[in-house]
Amino acid sequence: DGRDGENGKPGEPGQRESRAPKVTVGLTSRASAANVPIRFNKPFYNEQRHYDDTSGKFRCVYPGVYFFTYHLTIYPKDTRVSLYRNGKAVMFTYDQFQENNLDQASGSIILRLEARDEVYLQVYGEEEHGEIYADNTNDSTFSGFLLYSDDPASSQRS
Amino acid sequence: DGRDGENGKPGEPGQRESRAPKVTVGLTSRASAANVPIRFNKPFYNEQRHYDDTSGKFRCVYPGVYFFTYHLTIYPKDTRVSLYRNGKAVMFTYDQFQENNLDQASGSIILRLEARDEVYLQVYGEEEHGEIYADNTNDSTFSGFLLYSDDPASSQRS
Amino acid sequence: DGRDGENGKPGEPGQRESRAPKVTVGLTSRASAANVPIRFNKPFYNEQRHYDDTSGKFRCVYPGVYFFTYHLTIYPKDTRVSLYRNGKAVMFTYDQFQENNLDQASGSIILRLEARDEVYLQVYGEEEHGEIYADNTNDSTFSGFLLYSDDPASSQRS
Ligand SMILES: [Ca+2]
Ligand SMILES: [Ca+2]
Ligand SMILES: [Ca+2]
Repeated sequence: DGRDGENGKPGEPGQRESRAPKVTVGLTSRASAANVPIRFNKPFYNEQRHYDDTSGKFRCVYPGVYFFTYHLTIYPKDTRVSLYRNGKAVMFTYDQFQENNLDQASGSIILRLEARDEVYLQVYGEEEHGEIYADNTNDSTFSGFLLYSDDPASSQRS
Repeated sequence: DGRDGENGKPGEPGQRESRAPKVTVGLTSRASAANVPIRFNKPFYNEQRHYDDTSGKFRCVYPGVYFFTYHLTIYPKDTRVSLYRNGKAVMFTYDQFQENNLDQASGSIILRLEARDEVYLQVYGEEEHGEIYADNTNDSTFSGFLLYSDDPASSQRS
Repeated sequence: DGRDGENGKPGEPGQRESRAPKVTVGLTSRASAANVPIRFNKPFYNEQRHYDDTSGKFRCVYPGVYFFTYHLTIYPKDTRVSLYRNGKAVMFTYDQFQENNLDQASGSIILRLEARDEVYLQVYGEEEHGEIYADNTNDSTFSGFLLYSDDPASSQRS
């Protein structure tokens, strides 16, 4: 009889997958419609296209724990914004505007997402409390990235 | 003699550990006491319980390099807040309040922590310079997560 | 014939490399010069020295996808700041100042960097629109860290 084969090589070290979701998108102009997702249609980074600038939603493909952060320009009125997950407001940011005093407001959150969960920003309440401002020298942005994947195959190379 | 057996298959790729510390907590109401940690008792994500809402402190279990970020609502007075590590103020955030102009202030920091190190936010100085505001449509939050573990076994599955 | 060998052992767990770039730096005093990088010369964390406080620039050694965030104190005038990559303004933050109402402004961005790419903050436009404030109880900071390395060997141990 021949000898037994050698044991297989150890697996590859775990690697962060370049396909892992990560996105920063910004506004190209004012957004003021209440009760619909804010559409950030200026991509700073959106290679994997997990953010859909038509719907204004980040859509989870790989379940896991994500970090989101947003930075908003407050002008020319007060702003009330909420970060939503699947139609439910999860986090709230409010900032008041006074004449000649444009402001910046921001928020961050860690969330566990299941596949197909949607995360987005939305002005809530009356439309008059909801303008997010941006122009070509003043950004308002929404960013997110995967911190830890529940599914190794999705965030690790095989 | 027969042929040698085939080599075994490569092992499974390594995986990031879901137990790695990560937390976002918020305020449920105003916090104004000076010189004690601010107790964020509204958990957005605190599965591993590394943040203790009784003491108001994030406690390091796995040594490594961490990222922390906080977003605070400034109302109805000026706010002076510091991020502390083990009783020492490390980073300072100050924002002034003016009538009818509620503001948002924020900070971020990368820190190397040893096991049992404690990180928390605290109003410093006189109490009259220290209210952090929150209500049910206006959050003030504190988040943190492990960037790189010093101890592979603690942040990776075996 | 010999039997096939056993499958190999699972690979080593994936590990984040402690050398992976990560930095938080702050200002020690006011910075107001326009059109030169802001020099953050108060290191909160800069072990790998990827941020050079002489040039004021973060220099990419390991190509990959990075997260940057900054938090700026707005006082005593309006501030216009941009995050630059290699001489090109990528993201803009503007905040107006009013008497007795010191403010905070912030921004975040995810960027893919190639080796030798430089990232930094700079006041743009006229110098009178550009002071970033800091003193010993009020920080202005710039942070960045590697999210995903293009080159596994640089962010993972073998
Ligand atoms: Ca302002
Ligand atoms: Ca305001
Ligand atoms: Ca203010």
